[in-house]
Amino acid sequence: MRITTVGLDADDTLWHNETIFRLTQDRFRALMAEVAAPEVLDARLAAVERRNLSLYGYGVKGFTLSLIETAMELTGGEPPGRIVADILAAGREMLAHPVEPLPGVEHALAELSDSYRLVLITKGDLLHQEQKLAASGLGDLFVAVEIVSEKDARTYETVFARHGTGAGAAAMCGNSMRSDVLPALEAGAYAAHVPYPLTWAHEMADAPADHPRFAELASISELPGWVRALG
Amino acid sequence: MRITTVGLDADDTLWHNETIFRLTQDRFRALMAEVAAPEVLDARLAAVERRNLSLYGYGVKGFTLSLIETAMELTGGEPPGRIVADILAAGREMLAHPVEPLPGVEHALAELSDSYRLVLITKGDLLHQEQKLAASGLGDLFVAVEIVSEKDARTYETVFARHGTGAGAAAMCGNSMRSDVLPALEAGAYAAHVPYPLTWAHEMADAPADHPRFAELASISELPGWVRALG
Repeated sequence: MRITTVGLDADDTLWHNETIFRLTQDRFRALMAEVAAPEVLDARLAAVERRNLSLYGYGVKGFTLSLIETAMELTGGEPPGRIVADILAAGREMLAHPVEPLPGVEHALAELSDSYRLVLITKGDLLHQEQKLAASGLGDLFVAVEIVSEKDARTYETVFARHGTGAGAAAMCGNSMRSDVLPALEAGAYAAHVPYPLTWAHEMADAPADHPRFAELASISELPGWVRALG
Repeated sequence: MRITTVGLDADDTLWHNETIFRLTQDRFRALMAEVAAPEVLDARLAAVERRNLSLYGYGVKGFTLSLIETAMELTGGEPPGRIVADILAAGREMLAHPVEPLPGVEHALAELSDSYRLVLITKGDLLHQEQKLAASGLGDLFVAVEIVSEKDARTYETVFARHGTGAGAAAMCGNSMRSDVLPALEAGAYAAHVPYPLTWAHEMADAPADHPRFAELASISELPGWVRALG
């Protein structure tokens, strides 16, 4: 059998993530409605997040700090206390948000775990990702969990060497062409793109459509069949 | 040779950490001087941190959010903007703080790395810990870095099995009896306690003084000799 190991992205592949950030951003817009127009607010928040990315990285806590900083900037440095309080509450709610596997995930993973080693490979906040995995009820299906600060070819090489039999015998599956598919292919693995169901722009322009080890799947339910067919 | 692998804690073992949190707490006291007495402030901050620990975990970003929340509580929900701004700035400065290895660390690790596999085993924020290791200039001395959300016996078993030849052939070194020494001993490894030079209370009451695989070292400079003597 060629494939021994299947890597899976977590956020927006196994459960919702982007949606929760967007809902909080909607809430932030409502909260700041008297202070700034939505497009002004969004632009300022994006600029603050970009500026903080190298220090804060990805994750809810850094996002919460960036929301507070944005509120500061748009209120001349004096945000009403209720705005700060509501941002803190929104951050806590994001961290405590229930984790519901996306449709088809449990069935696909259960099927795959009979024949392959499943490895969760995800970016983001270490504690929060471990909590989400525990809350999802999917933890027992994985032989290993790797929470990484970057997803590049080197990352996939290391992880598939450590928990599998090398990238050449591994398949990666995720919703991001840039983080899940392209670097995994570069590392020598197979890779399947499963678009996040609620995302409109699928980044399809970047799809390496002709790559011999790439597949575009409509849903994670197609993953077990695709992996099995690899041999 | 019995020992193949040496695990090292990072914060307050290889470089200052607690001191930086304390300096920020001093700054917070000065900032809040007109609002609350230092002991009131400290007690409230400790309560907020305890309440948030399961959601925020360890690390600078969670600490920054807890500082803001404490300021909110002590100002009747309306902290002056300059206080919030200064807390945000303090958090960013902690994240960007230069990392200087503690005295003796570079020499001890260089000597150990000639004969043993060195593994960094640390809690805290993934991105920030990786940044600190890079900034310390010590990164090349380690064969592996494990940033974990909990340090228990199971963690040490897994890490020493993965990167070494099992806990029985490993020695762990760190400043925390509770996180570095006791669970490593429980996992079957050797363990050395090196107290953080600036800590007054050494938790010595908890030292497993009679344990055959335990050593209390005065400084990390004694580590290479102790490990060599294990065989």
